[in-house]
Amino acid sequence: MEQTLPSAAAAAGGDGEAYLIRPLELADISKGFLDLLNQLSPSPPLAEEAFRARFEELAALGADHLVLVAEDAATGRLAAAGALLVERKFIRRCGRVGHVEDVVVDAAARGRGLGERVVRCLVEHARGRGCYKVILNCTTELTGFYAKCGFVEKNVQMGLYF
Amino acid sequence: MEQTLPSAAAAAGGDGEAYLIRPLELADISKGFLDLLNQLSPSPPLAEEAFRARFEELAALGADHLVLVAEDAATGRLAAAGALLVERKFIRRCGRVGHVEDVVVDAAARGRGLGERVVRCLVEHARGRGCYKVILNCTTELTGFYAKCGFVEKNVQMGLYF
Repeated sequence: MEQTLPSAAAAAGGDGEAYLIRPLELADISKGFLDLLNQLSPSPPLAEEAFRARFEELAALGADHLVLVAEDAATGRLAAAGALLVERKFIRRCGRVGHVEDVVVDAAARGRGLGERVVRCLVEHARGRGCYKVILNCTTELTGFYAKCGFVEKNVQMGLYF
Repeated sequence: MEQTLPSAAAAAGGDGEAYLIRPLELADISKGFLDLLNQLSPSPPLAEEAFRARFEELAALGADHLVLVAEDAATGRLAAAGALLVERKFIRRCGRVGHVEDVVVDAAARGRGLGERVVRCLVEHARGRGCYKVILNCTTELTGFYAKCGFVEKNVQMGLYF
């Protein structure tokens, strides 16, 4: 699930717009992963130990859970992230569905197609896992972005908040 | 996660409207579980071996995955089902979200509040797992039903079909 740039030299010597899309690593806590998530949903700081514990829990799901990040090849900082959870069902002859979650692009890196690259990689991962569809929920403001990524409007998302 | 009826005698001696909400069991393949799912999403028959394998995969997720069924106490047949998948996130300080999936009530058992009972039990399970919210996707025709279960309309669900 790693997408490399056409040329490593181009990635390193470019204008700062070269990004590597790759799975999240434990070391990403020091590359701005939490700052990025904070732009999606502001939260009090997360202790490194809690990050590490959650990372391990998700790793135990194997290829049924994937977090991808976009790393700026010039600075080593993360500029985007997104997650995919594979749900195993009984319907559709024990079908699988991919759930795209928590897609975010750093405010300073928007407009470069990074979000779309992350989403398309997540979709390809779901395809590789044998999912018959990929779904996500978004605000009406974002439907245009996801349409560009290949999604169509389908249903209503409802929520119950504790 | 078992909800028992107020009185076993009432359940057994009633008018056939007494149901037990309980977790799915392997033996449910012979109690109409697949017929029920077929009403949700028609599919070619599923082999017992495939059902058993998927059941075991889901059991490995522990309390992060739950399928509930409503069993007719008089006939032993299943009249409703629904599933909950707990997603572990990094956002919201490593928060958890419950996803309600594949809720179905047998055509002959509708109008008895079974769907609502199953959904409310799934929601309670999510609460017990520490989820900060429960979400689901449905058609516009079903928003009224889920509003009755405590859900509010929130976002747009989009899908990409392979």
